[in-house]
Amino acid sequence: MKKILIANRGEIALRIMKTARDMGIATVAVYSEADASSPHVYYADEAVCIGPAPSSQSYLRGEAIVEAALRTGADAIHPGYGFLSENAAFARLVQDSGLTFIGPPPTAMEIMGDKLSAKNAVKAFGVPLVPGTDEAVSHIDQALEVARRIGLPIIIKASAGGGGKGMRLVEDIDMLEEQMQLAINEATSAFGNGAVFIEKFVEKPRHIEIQILADQHGQVVYLFERECSIQRRHQKVVEEAPSALVTPQLRRAMGQAAVNVARACGYVGAGTVEFLVDAGLNFYFLEMNTRLQVEHPVTELITGIDLVREQIRIARGEPLGYTQDDLSIRGHAIEARVYAENPWENFTPDIGTLTVYNQPSGPGIRVDDGYRQGMQIPIYYDPMIAKLITYGSTRTEAIQRMIRACRDYEIAGVHTTLPFIEYVMQHPAFLSGDFDTNFVKQHFTPDQLPAPTDEEITVAALTAAAWAYHNSNPPVISQNGQSHTSDVSLWKIRRQIY
Amino acid sequence: MKKILIANRGEIALRIMKTARDMGIATVAVYSEADASSPHVYYADEAVCIGPAPSSQSYLRGEAIVEAALRTGADAIHPGYGFLSENAAFARLVQDSGLTFIGPPPTAMEIMGDKLSAKNAVKAFGVPLVPGTDEAVSHIDQALEVARRIGLPIIIKASAGGGGKGMRLVEDIDMLEEQMQLAINEATSAFGNGAVFIEKFVEKPRHIEIQILADQHGQVVYLFERECSIQRRHQKVVEEAPSALVTPQLRRAMGQAAVNVARACGYVGAGTVEFLVDAGLNFYFLEMNTRLQVEHPVTELITGIDLVREQIRIARGEPLGYTQDDLSIRGHAIEARVYAENPWENFTPDIGTLTVYNQPSGPGIRVDDGYRQGMQIPIYYDPMIAKLITYGSTRTEAIQRMIRACRDYEIAGVHTTLPFIEYVMQHPAFLSGDFDTNFVKQHFTPDQLPAPTDEEITVAALTAAAWAYHNSNPPVISQNGQSHTSDVSLWKIRRQIY
Repeated sequence: MKKILIANRGEIALRIMKTARDMGIATVAVYSEADASSPHVYYADEAVCIGPAPSSQSYLRGEAIVEAALRTGADAIHPGYGFLSENAAFARLVQDSGLTFIGPPPTAMEIMGDKLSAKNAVKAFGVPLVPGTDEAVSHIDQALEVARRIGLPIIIKASAGGGGKGMRLVEDIDMLEEQMQLAINEATSAFGNGAVFIEKFVEKPRHIEIQILADQHGQVVYLFERECSIQRRHQKVVEEAPSALVTPQLRRAMGQAAVNVARACGYVGAGTVEFLVDAGLNFYFLEMNTRLQVEHPVTELITGIDLVREQIRIARGEPLGYTQDDLSIRGHAIEARVYAENPWENFTPDIGTLTVYNQPSGPGIRVDDGYRQGMQIPIYYDPMIAKLITYGSTRTEAIQRMIRACRDYEIAGVHTTLPFIEYVMQHPAFLSGDFDTNFVKQHFTPDQLPAPTDEEITVAALTAAAWAYHNSNPPVISQNGQSHTSDVSLWKIRRQIY
Repeated sequence: MKKILIANRGEIALRIMKTARDMGIATVAVYSEADASSPHVYYADEAVCIGPAPSSQSYLRGEAIVEAALRTGADAIHPGYGFLSENAAFARLVQDSGLTFIGPPPTAMEIMGDKLSAKNAVKAFGVPLVPGTDEAVSHIDQALEVARRIGLPIIIKASAGGGGKGMRLVEDIDMLEEQMQLAINEATSAFGNGAVFIEKFVEKPRHIEIQILADQHGQVVYLFERECSIQRRHQKVVEEAPSALVTPQLRRAMGQAAVNVARACGYVGAGTVEFLVDAGLNFYFLEMNTRLQVEHPVTELITGIDLVREQIRIARGEPLGYTQDDLSIRGHAIEARVYAENPWENFTPDIGTLTVYNQPSGPGIRVDDGYRQGMQIPIYYDPMIAKLITYGSTRTEAIQRMIRACRDYEIAGVHTTLPFIEYVMQHPAFLSGDFDTNFVKQHFTPDQLPAPTDEEITVAALTAAAWAYHNSNPPVISQNGQSHTSDVSLWKIRRQIY
């Protein structure tokens, strides 16, 4: 493998290219017209434009991507996450074109891509499932019978679904028929497949996932868990490893279950098995993500293993070279997703230019990003600016470093999730480890964020303007008593100068 | 301990402040007039100007620094490295002023500050010493007798010396008298103390040091070794942990010897015991550095322990809380010192403005620095811009990441040691682990560095100008075939655009 095309953009394209570069492998970027001056385009050895901004006309055009790979002489394609990463047809197209797909076999993607087929596959391997139906339910009588058997509340889910679409919660038996019809309609329009199934609704669930690696020679290991319960709009925003909840015993049980899930679908490569864990520490298989996860760096930090390197090694046919017993957890890592979103306005995406952009640095901090000062946040894509990842010998140290990193991060021009992340890191529920996926709903309202003072806003605007125009040392500002907010401040404002 | 004054500047002042901030401890910076707009001044909660640029009038003025601490209500002083960090009189002044000195007891500094007293102290603890004299030699007859006993070549060293000053190599017995007189004269003028002693000259020596931590309750542990053999002008430039040379058995022996050195002087805090290791894997005590070392981050990365946090905890009287058996090495770390020096001109310091300055980032990279784009390299201080530190699960991975990081580092306006570092990382002697402190003399001439092409120089100058003036996206540059040099390039130049 001498040249890899990365069928993605932004931070994950850069992150994959960095490991490829480490390994002496050349890289090819693909890009949309809107991304023509993006860092991932400059970082690659070669770059190919594959169409206009809407993803359907560029990053989702599998044939154009394969054509770019053939044209540049790439011998493998890494799909990153999102876009075509879990598209079995794309993986097949890549393989049929004589290229290596850096990911699992298409058949494994297909089994895990459908929630019902996934449940059926893993059931035979003794993996615990949320009580419910294991085939599509289309008639209200079936649904009523299931609801009586497993008890309310229940959740109706689209078999082809994901990301909360086509999901309906039923707490009252009288609402079942109506909700089921809505779920079927939603699933049909969203996925072209109206199949739905029913599961017991797990209350106060924690979202905990297990990273696995499987080579082409039948060796499968788990790289422990990531806790991803802090979510807003059903999307993860803070992840950590290990989980504050998981005991060594539970870790082994979940790890073994994840390995079984991988075996159930003949998995090869890096994958993630998602579980729900309830208040009684029972865990239930949720789904398998057949790709690299956004939050993979926390696993890298606690295990010392570069997951992209492992993906490439596995795709080349190399054996893992280590066993489960060789793996262990050292320390604690937290990832926070820095989005261009306004946490005061229900996390709505914020569009604008990064007039100031400086990463935090120093002990225990890693930043995976795809932006530079002066760039615009494009409206076409996920507004994630960076993944801010901290490591510490203990969970407390990792949290303290995350708070420092949030305050040291200098971003101006757009609102970001940084003040929210700092809020989470200081919340008693997060600190105690006693939280679930309802954290945001339960514990967060925007008025809990410290509003910047008028003085801070003025200082930030002035220093941002000075920085942007002169690009030199900012003016020395002397003031008393006021602190700063991390998402607008530039150099830290000296509290007192003698 | 609620507020710490950091009696230092640049990257180490910032690095200490970051951990203090993690621990919820306020910080006070001191600064010279030349450093008024330096990052360490902005990062601190408070800052005090202590005089004009020459260190003798600012960073070496112990009384002014203590006065600044008392004035700002600081309750402790961290000296960093260099400046007053190994000055026992300063440590005493700090303590006599009712403040905590974050460092060892002054008596330990005194014992280790004089090479002869250090040798005598550790000898009683069975620590191996280079064959030689254990008291000052002032007469040529004594010297001749020693030379006959231990055999040539020998080295004459100033008892109060350091950094190569007052050191004279004697390979020919006829030169002994003359060289001894020169050494005495040099020692007298440099240290006000003409005492010299004689040691067997270790050929092909490797410089390997052991990090130790000692609490106030008698517990001492070692945090394994750092290999610091790659030096230019007797100054370290690349360090790594663990050493490619050291076996588990040698590691235990050297670790135990280092613990004994610490016990020999009643050491408390973080300290480093330096050894020479010869080709036969015999090791000899060289000296103890009674402070934090520049290269401490490589130890942090392989052990997961924040050494500054441990220094602060120990100074507060806390017990270590772990034993030797709890410590282990995971992975491999390399530090390269990025100096504003011209490797084509015998590493002479290069003065100028950082017209472009962007750190590398991503998996396995840590940057500890004290600069920002637009700043000038001051003529008054050590011209180190940054410490570039990489981590990998193996030595190979750490080396690969260092090469990537060198290429990704964007610095324009001054020459740097980056091309030299990249050269070292690819040299067969370094890759094989078979090198010693003569590496630079033996293996390096400037013509081995790839000279930038005319085209690259032009492109770099244009993009630097564009970046500096517009501070926005650089122009898209399309060209064929040419690669770039890492110390002048900006965004990577796309090789080929379709």
